[in-house]
Amino acid sequence: MESVGVGLIGTGYMGKCHALAWNAVNPVFGDCPDVRLLHLADVTEEQAAAKARELGFADSNAQWRDVIADPQVDVVSITTPNAFHAEMAIAALEAGKHVWCEKPMAPDVGDAARMRDASRAHGKVAILGYNYIQNPVMRHIELLLKSREIGKVHHVRFEMDEDFMADPEAHFFWKSEASSGYGALDDFAVHPLSLIHKLLGPVSSVMADMAKPFAHRPLVDGGERAVETYDVANVLLRLESGAAGMLCVSRSAWGRKGRVAMQIFGSTGSILFDQERMNEFQLYRNEGHAANQGFRTILASPDHPPYDRFLPAPGHGLGFNDQKVIECRQLLAAMAGEEAHLVDFEEGLAIERTVHAMARSFEEGRWISVLD
Amino acid sequence: MESVGVGLIGTGYMGKCHALAWNAVNPVFGDCPDVRLLHLADVTEEQAAAKARELGFADSNAQWRDVIADPQVDVVSITTPNAFHAEMAIAALEAGKHVWCEKPMAPDVGDAARMRDASRAHGKVAILGYNYIQNPVMRHIELLLKSREIGKVHHVRFEMDEDFMADPEAHFFWKSEASSGYGALDDFAVHPLSLIHKLLGPVSSVMADMAKPFAHRPLVDGGERAVETYDVANVLLRLESGAAGMLCVSRSAWGRKGRVAMQIFGSTGSILFDQERMNEFQLYRNEGHAANQGFRTILASPDHPPYDRFLPAPGHGLGFNDQKVIECRQLLAAMAGEEAHLVDFEEGLAIERTVHAMARSFEEGRWISVLD
Amino acid sequence: MESVGVGLIGTGYMGKCHALAWNAVNPVFGDCPDVRLLHLADVTEEQAAAKARELGFADSNAQWRDVIADPQVDVVSITTPNAFHAEMAIAALEAGKHVWCEKPMAPDVGDAARMRDASRAHGKVAILGYNYIQNPVMRHIELLLKSREIGKVHHVRFEMDEDFMADPEAHFFWKSEASSGYGALDDFAVHPLSLIHKLLGPVSSVMADMAKPFAHRPLVDGGERAVETYDVANVLLRLESGAAGMLCVSRSAWGRKGRVAMQIFGSTGSILFDQERMNEFQLYRNEGHAANQGFRTILASPDHPPYDRFLPAPGHGLGFNDQKVIECRQLLAAMAGEEAHLVDFEEGLAIERTVHAMARSFEEGRWISVLD
Amino acid sequence: MESVGVGLIGTGYMGKCHALAWNAVNPVFGDCPDVRLLHLADVTEEQAAAKARELGFADSNAQWRDVIADPQVDVVSITTPNAFHAEMAIAALEAGKHVWCEKPMAPDVGDAARMRDASRAHGKVAILGYNYIQNPVMRHIELLLKSREIGKVHHVRFEMDEDFMADPEAHFFWKSEASSGYGALDDFAVHPLSLIHKLLGPVSSVMADMAKPFAHRPLVDGGERAVETYDVANVLLRLESGAAGMLCVSRSAWGRKGRVAMQIFGSTGSILFDQERMNEFQLYRNEGHAANQGFRTILASPDHPPYDRFLPAPGHGLGFNDQKVIECRQLLAAMAGEEAHLVDFEEGLAIERTVHAMARSFEEGRWISVLD
Repeated sequence: MESVGVGLIGTGYMGKCHALAWNAVNPVFGDCPDVRLLHLADVTEEQAAAKARELGFADSNAQWRDVIADPQVDVVSITTPNAFHAEMAIAALEAGKHVWCEKPMAPDVGDAARMRDASRAHGKVAILGYNYIQNPVMRHIELLLKSREIGKVHHVRFEMDEDFMADPEAHFFWKSEASSGYGALDDFAVHPLSLIHKLLGPVSSVMADMAKPFAHRPLVDGGERAVETYDVANVLLRLESGAAGMLCVSRSAWGRKGRVAMQIFGSTGSILFDQERMNEFQLYRNEGHAANQGFRTILASPDHPPYDRFLPAPGHGLGFNDQKVIECRQLLAAMAGEEAHLVDFEEGLAIERTVHAMARSFEEGRWISVLD
Repeated sequence: MESVGVGLIGTGYMGKCHALAWNAVNPVFGDCPDVRLLHLADVTEEQAAAKARELGFADSNAQWRDVIADPQVDVVSITTPNAFHAEMAIAALEAGKHVWCEKPMAPDVGDAARMRDASRAHGKVAILGYNYIQNPVMRHIELLLKSREIGKVHHVRFEMDEDFMADPEAHFFWKSEASSGYGALDDFAVHPLSLIHKLLGPVSSVMADMAKPFAHRPLVDGGERAVETYDVANVLLRLESGAAGMLCVSRSAWGRKGRVAMQIFGSTGSILFDQERMNEFQLYRNEGHAANQGFRTILASPDHPPYDRFLPAPGHGLGFNDQKVIECRQLLAAMAGEEAHLVDFEEGLAIERTVHAMARSFEEGRWISVLD
Repeated sequence: MESVGVGLIGTGYMGKCHALAWNAVNPVFGDCPDVRLLHLADVTEEQAAAKARELGFADSNAQWRDVIADPQVDVVSITTPNAFHAEMAIAALEAGKHVWCEKPMAPDVGDAARMRDASRAHGKVAILGYNYIQNPVMRHIELLLKSREIGKVHHVRFEMDEDFMADPEAHFFWKSEASSGYGALDDFAVHPLSLIHKLLGPVSSVMADMAKPFAHRPLVDGGERAVETYDVANVLLRLESGAAGMLCVSRSAWGRKGRVAMQIFGSTGSILFDQERMNEFQLYRNEGHAANQGFRTILASPDHPPYDRFLPAPGHGLGFNDQKVIECRQLLAAMAGEEAHLVDFEEGLAIERTVHAMARSFEEGRWISVLD
Repeated sequence: MESVGVGLIGTGYMGKCHALAWNAVNPVFGDCPDVRLLHLADVTEEQAAAKARELGFADSNAQWRDVIADPQVDVVSITTPNAFHAEMAIAALEAGKHVWCEKPMAPDVGDAARMRDASRAHGKVAILGYNYIQNPVMRHIELLLKSREIGKVHHVRFEMDEDFMADPEAHFFWKSEASSGYGALDDFAVHPLSLIHKLLGPVSSVMADMAKPFAHRPLVDGGERAVETYDVANVLLRLESGAAGMLCVSRSAWGRKGRVAMQIFGSTGSILFDQERMNEFQLYRNEGHAANQGFRTILASPDHPPYDRFLPAPGHGLGFNDQKVIECRQLLAAMAGEEAHLVDFEEGLAIERTVHAMARSFEEGRWISVLD
């Protein structure tokens, strides 16, 4: 694989994030095939042309199918709204392209299953943009867990919170409509679930509660409308490993901006992490004299690969977008047939089924087995 | 009330803590009746005499009933193991004494109810040692919540964790036996529940999960024994106020030493607290320019009464035992017929019923209404 | 020594703090002689009588010399304003009493030297109230340093900051007058110097700068007056051990409430501490894999004696006043002829000479040897 | 300016960092001229060719003068060792190129002055790579200071620490030789000085101490050699604004990885920052009720431009390399004749003169005026 032709569908924030990653992956890693940014699609030809110029793509188009049809394109980044993922991803796989699709897969689990089926059928790499698993600190935590540095994990707590819907005076908008999904569960739960999958393995059963912090929201033109989605969810978890756990998500948590917090308790130690301080984590090990035991705050460093590809000095810090560059490098590895650390459509479907099990658990007021 | 005669039953750690409070309450507050430490009971006469000397009590005794019978004693501190609370507290109330009893009330909810009935019947002050509610920082948080400084609270998370049972190599002991109760739920849940009651009001329904981090523990003489109690519990909460919540407790959480953490999310702000840093809390308010919003770390200060009775300077810090001195001052207020900030046997019973509802919820795998 | 008779001169905040310590020392430690609170002096007889009632003293007096003359009094706590220390302490020592005097010794270094001479001449215990050295966390740090857990210390940074003079609108008052001393240097520098003495040994030379954040302050009755003292000082240090260092003090540092921060760098590790979080410290050691190295946050625990005398559980926290109880216990040990961990008048004089050397260095704009 | 031709000399870490910035600046900002990566020079032709492929440059060369001579090149990134800066930068300026040179300018202050002279003479943009000033959080702090949000600044403390020379067992290498400069002062002091310049204005006088934590270091082949440089420096500062200050730098501070910490105290508030947590800062303002005052931890967000060009959501975090992208955008602005936020050769010379004044102050043991 001497060179890779890249197509991009969608140029909103995540489209830009993919483009940044495609631009940076070779300068950062220095060991990739030649990455050629070939073809980009956006809603209008004008906008597509402007974005192509900005993001460094050679061609542009208002027809996403043309990107997929482009014979020089080997891999397609799909960063459009979730409702379009299934159609585009399946079309791309059918056209023999590798697919890098933003998560979640699809609002409808049936569509997600069809995406998974297409990835099986066509033998191409099909992965989802779960970038938090790419943080070098997270990779190191994974390594610590797998080498049993904190023994057998028996209890975990995950939280994901932001505050973009914390203001009751914010207007009713599409995220408050039932058609957008369950609420915080869709927006957030997949992220901690991707971490749980990679660090701890699958969830076996769930018992969820959901809540509406604000029953109504004002309408732009006056009056108000009943909120149909749940901005808060709390979930009891049982993992296949036997560990017990808890997951809380909220998009109405004032002061939380990008919190993805985890507490992992094992038989010989504990690990803490919060994405708001993504360049550090905390490790406690029951070793040495009790008078000197405490949580160690460990800063990201070249000892946590591939941090070393970005920076030669410890404690200088990576950013959110750098995670996407690492994800891009992993995708190139997968395309080259190498082992890679990614969430593919198979695992992505398992994650989304877990979310749907949570919602069902809430509706039925009982524990639900994810495998059912 | 010019003077108060004090009796003390039990001289373990909490007995000492009560004695320290009785010794300090007047020097700290300077506005109390004369506190006379009269009569102390312990298991043997010898030990009782030694402890009386240390703790400043005039008389000592191996018969706790003699303390209660002492006509000069006005109030009895009961700090014996939980199983003895009911008999002693009821006897003291029947003898016309005020009672300061350590929590929880009793392993059996029927005994707790009888204690409550006795407190009603005899018209004496009967309170429980829920000291975390006395922290000046906590009192200030209560004030902030009541004056709606963070608006209407819609979501809360409480955690209480220690690690004294985190080591799987620790021997099986009485806390692993079913006769000791449910496990972490008894040891810990009452503390956050006391905070929930004071800050947010009663819990209406619960859905609990419990877990055994270690199925077996080694026996001192070799071999092992199956653990019968649950060192971990995770509980979904619904409060009467309408707020949704979560409570997690663990006595096997490596690195956590005295964590009692809470996150309270309201419609205009949030409050965070952790007892491991009991002299500070965090406040976020949606006010001012977004570029300058953040969680404020507020240090305990004379502006948070009665901190000012201990220290004239902010940021210098109170300790765990100081909370008990404040509790003692509140008890004296209650005995004088003044309004006081305490958990009495009535509220204590409500708290313990909530714990039992959690256990029942776990056994039956469904939501349980606390009022049932 | 079966019992100890205690006298107290001065009942302001530090007088109360001494009284609390005298009341608590036996209940906390349980191994002291019988402490009898005998005689207290305050400005008027009325106030003295009221304070004696509050603080648990038997007799009261408006004549401090009567406290010293009381034959039953073995030890005198002196907590009056600094200007009175020398006369009172020397009188007490001459009367054959042990002396527990609040720091600093005296505004005039000659007076301080006379106090030292009196302590030498009369062979009684004469100590100063440097309570920060008594924090169990600090004692543990001292132990770590002495056992070379971070190797040879080569660089230290000390800061002490509060904000009680941070507001330029605050009125001119006595602390802004030259007669009160240099400024922040007197108020604060002795505290970090007491830590430096105990942890690292004496300072050999200093080079200081001082600053006036506000040239004038408003007068209560209108107008303004030029400020004569320095609310800020920055000092370069050389220790006898060879370590280089820095000391910064400010009483105009908005947001700092009781900060006494230190950073100690050694050849194999580092230690950090801040009194605003007095129940924890941070330890870094160059050991184990680099990927797992970090500062450990260690919570105060029974493994840091004498924390265990106050609390049996880790992470529950001592308060500022508890440090004074420990100081009191050390004083009783010294009075019994046992080894004790205290700043006596000898060491106190060395500390104050260091402060005066700093002031001289500032005046002369050059390095000053403390021993000169 | 429709397009910009870029040359790069040096492809070590900072060369890669420049290349990443040149690759990312348009995708991130979307409003730049077309950036053409034209010509790169490295030590050998082979290495240059490999690096050109990785970093996306069209041509490569082993002769740096050929890069400068390339008529299509408009701007040259110079990222070679400091000793080469002067010759290369002056040649580039003479050739009519804009120059983006890594800091510091040159080991010799005369060379630095010649660079400044060349920049004056040829009227081209000539800037230094002081990236910490580009952090959006730092830009916001600058804004807060300039709008007097914390009033008049009267006292500042700056620290910069790493631990790459903390181990006394590390071998003697070129940084321990006098020919490398003073030591920590060269390595680190320029960084905090760049912040001081931008946030607070120039330094007027300095009084420095320097120290060698380890007198000798082992040689690779056995034996040891006396260390000639100072790994630690402590400096008293006086700013032109009248503020007093302190600067401490160490490259032997175990546990510090990329600490660039500042404390800024003003008449109405304070600001704290540490580069190890570059996505947050702390703000204290004396406003509202004292009971609710505290340091606010403010997370980087789109409200701190140009964070919004990288990420639409707050609290998600930029990385060290992103600072360089912002610097690159500022450089393009300067090249287009727009106002830009940069350290040019004029200001860079002032910064380096301040460092040399510190060294002279240490040698002479007295305060030195920077302007002398």
